[in-house]
Amino acid sequence: MTSCIPTADAPEPLCAVAIHQAVSRGETRAVAVLEQALARIATVDGAVHAWTEVDRDAALAAACAIDAGERRSGLLAGVPLAVKDIFRAAGTRTTFGSPIFRDAPPDAEDADCVAAARAAQAVVLGKTVSTEFAYFTPGPTANPWDTGHTPGGSSSGSAAAVASGMVPLAIGSQTAGSLIRPASYCGVFGLKATYGRYSLRGTRDFSRSLDTLGWMARSADDLELMRCALAGEAYAPLPVPQAGGLRLGYWDTFEAEALDAGGRAAFETAVARCGAAGIHLEAVALPGTLRGLAEAQKTVMAYEACRALAPEYENHRDLMGPALVQLVETGLGIGDAAYAAAQALAEQGRAAAADLLRHVDALLVPAAPGEAPAGLAATGDPVFSRVWTLLGQPCVSVPGLFGPNGLPIGTQLVGRWQQDRALLAAAARLRQALAA
Amino acid sequence: MTSCIPTADAPEPLCAVAIHQAVSRGETRAVAVLEQALARIATVDGAVHAWTEVDRDAALAAACAIDAGERRSGLLAGVPLAVKDIFRAAGTRTTFGSPIFRDAPPDAEDADCVAAARAAQAVVLGKTVSTEFAYFTPGPTANPWDTGHTPGGSSSGSAAAVASGMVPLAIGSQTAGSLIRPASYCGVFGLKATYGRYSLRGTRDFSRSLDTLGWMARSADDLELMRCALAGEAYAPLPVPQAGGLRLGYWDTFEAEALDAGGRAAFETAVARCGAAGIHLEAVALPGTLRGLAEAQKTVMAYEACRALAPEYENHRDLMGPALVQLVETGLGIGDAAYAAAQALAEQGRAAAADLLRHVDALLVPAAPGEAPAGLAATGDPVFSRVWTLLGQPCVSVPGLFGPNGLPIGTQLVGRWQQDRALLAAAARLRQALAA
Repeated sequence: MTSCIPTADAPEPLCAVAIHQAVSRGETRAVAVLEQALARIATVDGAVHAWTEVDRDAALAAACAIDAGERRSGLLAGVPLAVKDIFRAAGTRTTFGSPIFRDAPPDAEDADCVAAARAAQAVVLGKTVSTEFAYFTPGPTANPWDTGHTPGGSSSGSAAAVASGMVPLAIGSQTAGSLIRPASYCGVFGLKATYGRYSLRGTRDFSRSLDTLGWMARSADDLELMRCALAGEAYAPLPVPQAGGLRLGYWDTFEAEALDAGGRAAFETAVARCGAAGIHLEAVALPGTLRGLAEAQKTVMAYEACRALAPEYENHRDLMGPALVQLVETGLGIGDAAYAAAQALAEQGRAAAADLLRHVDALLVPAAPGEAPAGLAATGDPVFSRVWTLLGQPCVSVPGLFGPNGLPIGTQLVGRWQQDRALLAAAARLRQALAA
Repeated sequence: MTSCIPTADAPEPLCAVAIHQAVSRGETRAVAVLEQALARIATVDGAVHAWTEVDRDAALAAACAIDAGERRSGLLAGVPLAVKDIFRAAGTRTTFGSPIFRDAPPDAEDADCVAAARAAQAVVLGKTVSTEFAYFTPGPTANPWDTGHTPGGSSSGSAAAVASGMVPLAIGSQTAGSLIRPASYCGVFGLKATYGRYSLRGTRDFSRSLDTLGWMARSADDLELMRCALAGEAYAPLPVPQAGGLRLGYWDTFEAEALDAGGRAAFETAVARCGAAGIHLEAVALPGTLRGLAEAQKTVMAYEACRALAPEYENHRDLMGPALVQLVETGLGIGDAAYAAAQALAEQGRAAAADLLRHVDALLVPAAPGEAPAGLAATGDPVFSRVWTLLGQPCVSVPGLFGPNGLPIGTQLVGRWQQDRALLAAAARLRQALAA
């Protein structure tokens, strides 16, 4: 078992909030932060393979410009940032994890999320590995906790880069479970934002009713810092609720049988520790009539993806992985009525979830079936994210628990529509409870 | 030349506002209104072919229910309504003008626009002919002014049904020029609403950045009545501005050379009559850097349509018209960068149009190249609508002028984003000026 997790013998990587404070006060130079990140990449990326491209020169130029400039107050001033290789970033290549785009020219423009991060003085380090078109066919990335295990997908490189201490922040995305699952497997915080709240301009559609921006970090406050940068809001530390002031509805979900023993134990541990910490807990569940939501997510995804990928399917089918070809062909066979029925069920689900979230602040649910599976040929199962992605609620994976092999298992909180900040505050409290 | 336009020897068809008033006051029965519509259909639809399906029994039941009910105050109480055959309406078949869907089962649900109309007590009469997937391959509909000429497309049946006095109101849609052009050719009022303002749920995507709801009627106030019903607003008659209080910016557009002699003369007549009526006029133009907007509309449409039609192209290519196959194949060859460039130009166009519309209340531009062309094998050229559809501005075609063959030529007003009511008020004033 090869681990690439920062340990006591290496300098603890700075968190984004600390970098922002130190750089904006002139206590640290952005270039020094960058050099630490580059050194960490040099040390561990040969084993982790988180990156498709590190744009060292551009990052150095950006860091130097911050150090030389008068303004160093951007929310992400000097913060090294990784960007999933499905988002445009000027000067880098965007391949979507597909050989079809292997020789694409460098991007001329930034995706909106990248532009917002740069406007907040982030130092964009480069692109991180995505599975093929953010679906299932994996890239080379390994789990930093044990390089024989998958980091999850599709935001594989972003999760691994954060977990291994190469960067404090990384942009990802989720259509099924592409952000929450790798965050869980890699033991980092991951936020899938409220659907539609943060622009996806500068990537491609895969399934436009589902595709959602997210990002990963090593603390809830770092996630919040990034959220503020993207939203154009001023940053204030999360108002972490008192344990007694937080109400969580816990539920092992309709997909409970997909939990393995480690995942089941972790979920029960999370509930127990929340109880011990004094968090108000109650058992909740969506109505049984909504049991089909996970299947509805698959229907919506396949129906939309076969359209989004029509040119690739027509012109480059030989360069597509079998799972993706299968998805397209499934989608081509889904009629409008089945799609409409799936969307109608999603609408019912949104109303029902909103009902639940009137009584509790967030739902506590599994983030993944358990620890990261062994092997790099598959990225695990997004089963515990499908429903929440379909419903559009913000979700966060909170690290702190471990399975029988010593690998991380995240705990997922699902928050109220558009209440991403409140959800992150609850996540910070949950993290404390899990550590107790 | 066979004309199916209402003449003095037939009862003048009631307008929607008058029907609403008479039915809601109990002065007219909805059934009587319906019977008049059905009689008109029986008289002229054998020549016009506006309908794919008239659901007589359901319409009669709806009208009887209104007459028997306590509430008769819906904005569309008793108003016979035609629905373009791309929108779902429970109990009718939606074929999208394509043989692929010839044997589709009857719809289980209403499209949002149909549901809103029914909630306002409209009497849905049935479905009107659309070209194939609202693109170019025509259906059987003839122009009521001269059945040897096209009614335009793709909202062919809706325009013809209104023009020939079969219904006072008809729902259509526009992706290039599918509403403004047939309204112009058929001499009716047509509104293409502000992009995104009115739900398209219950139809299929063709080009999701462009597809827009619209409707047709024989007066601007009837268009406004329908708008209020869709928006859930109370209806008040249009606040028609005094001529001296209306500022129009006139422009023959970047596509001016597509005007034929009749179209050119009509446009100049429109400008002259506005001047004579005392409307404030000034010549305006978008910056020459935006000359590529019409091409950008084609790029966006092809890129998106090849995706929307992926299942049909894959599974039923033999049942698709050659123009549609060509569009899909064009789209499959358009790269993401070309698409992004087209969208970026559209963004610039939106800003520039907003600039123009700070100085004037609406733009006065051609609606179509001229009169409806002879023959039913093609539906004419959407050239004068491509740019405005791409930009998303509300547009209205105003009747009142005629070409050398005695066929109608509409005059187009382009309004401010989301100011559809103000645009319709300007249209009412323009109609008066054109009549003078």
